[in-house]
Amino acid sequence: MASPEIEALTQALSRLPGLGPRSARRAVLHLLKKREAALGPLRAALEAVDERLATCRTCGNVDTADPCSICADPRRDARSLCVVEEVADLWALDRSRLFPGRFHVLGGRLSALEGVRPEDLSIDRLVARLEDGGVDEVVLAMNATLEGQTTAHYLAERIERFPVRITQLAHGLPVGGELDYLDEGTLAQALRARRPVG
Amino acid sequence: MASPEIEALTQALSRLPGLGPRSARRAVLHLLKKREAALGPLRAALEAVDERLATCRTCGNVDTADPCSICADPRRDARSLCVVEEVADLWALDRSRLFPGRFHVLGGRLSALEGVRPEDLSIDRLVARLEDGGVDEVVLAMNATLEGQTTAHYLAERIERFPVRITQLAHGLPVGGELDYLDEGTLAQALRARRPVG
Repeated sequence: MASPEIEALTQALSRLPGLGPRSARRAVLHLLKKREAALGPLRAALEAVDERLATCRTCGNVDTADPCSICADPRRDARSLCVVEEVADLWALDRSRLFPGRFHVLGGRLSALEGVRPEDLSIDRLVARLEDGGVDEVVLAMNATLEGQTTAHYLAERIERFPVRITQLAHGLPVGGELDYLDEGTLAQALRARRPVG
Repeated sequence: MASPEIEALTQALSRLPGLGPRSARRAVLHLLKKREAALGPLRAALEAVDERLATCRTCGNVDTADPCSICADPRRDARSLCVVEEVADLWALDRSRLFPGRFHVLGGRLSALEGVRPEDLSIDRLVARLEDGGVDEVVLAMNATLEGQTTAHYLAERIERFPVRITQLAHGLPVGGELDYLDEGTLAQALRARRPVG
């Protein structure tokens, strides 16, 4: 048998999405063969992330600074707020460079099946941000899934009392599609054609 | 864009076999979401492997001790030596618990295409082990690939002057198959029916 250290590393890697026990073992062997070129950099990168990264208390983004670089960027339009389910969605939209405003990460989506209730998401923080004022438009950029759209509906109701334009991403999202997997063209179309709720 | 730390971690992960840029990003997000349950253990496991593991100077296995636990195990039959291409193959055979002897890891296979020559493999160390005596049988457990079989032929010629029985894994290996991907039953059949070379 391989040593306990190797077994532990194989286990830790096999729990990553996309890796099973066998591919994790392959990955471990690769790391052992390329200690300087692969194991060292991965270890250093993990340490850096573990030690330096924090969750932005304003928007929920993960960054080295709190507030994060997006919240702190004066060139970003603070009047426009894009609400997304996950940090991955924020990154997907940010990579497309199509949205000039700021973000709000919910940390998930409402789900009866998984028992995710409104109080499990950062909805109160979103409401607080709107109460602080200065926001003209809220873009509800949920995934085009049943749960994403349910969440968008719920959010629209929760914030309809604020004097803000509430929009959602336009058609262009394929049904059942998730933001992080879309090509930039589709994202651009969806963002450009965003429309008021209700 | 995500922070440089996250980009670095994504890059380091995407270089692992089986992970591409997108699945690496998914993995990073998973790690960020589960810092206690996933990132911490993975970091600790990498550190332990990086700091404690060494290559056994006798057989080429990777372990916490040198000589490794297999070479140091008195219950292992030192008269029987199984030569494999990679550490992964050693682990595959060892997991099957079918081979009671010791191992010798070549560190690859002869390959004109990849420019791997005999002096790039630990063949001299194998010859030295045979010169030390005490070995009755050498099992050439190369992969059933063209390069694996070429390597086996070359090895058989290099060590034919020693008074040892030279065997190779029997039919049972599918053509083109690699040891680490075989089921235990096939491995068992191949090992049980091993036959003399030439």
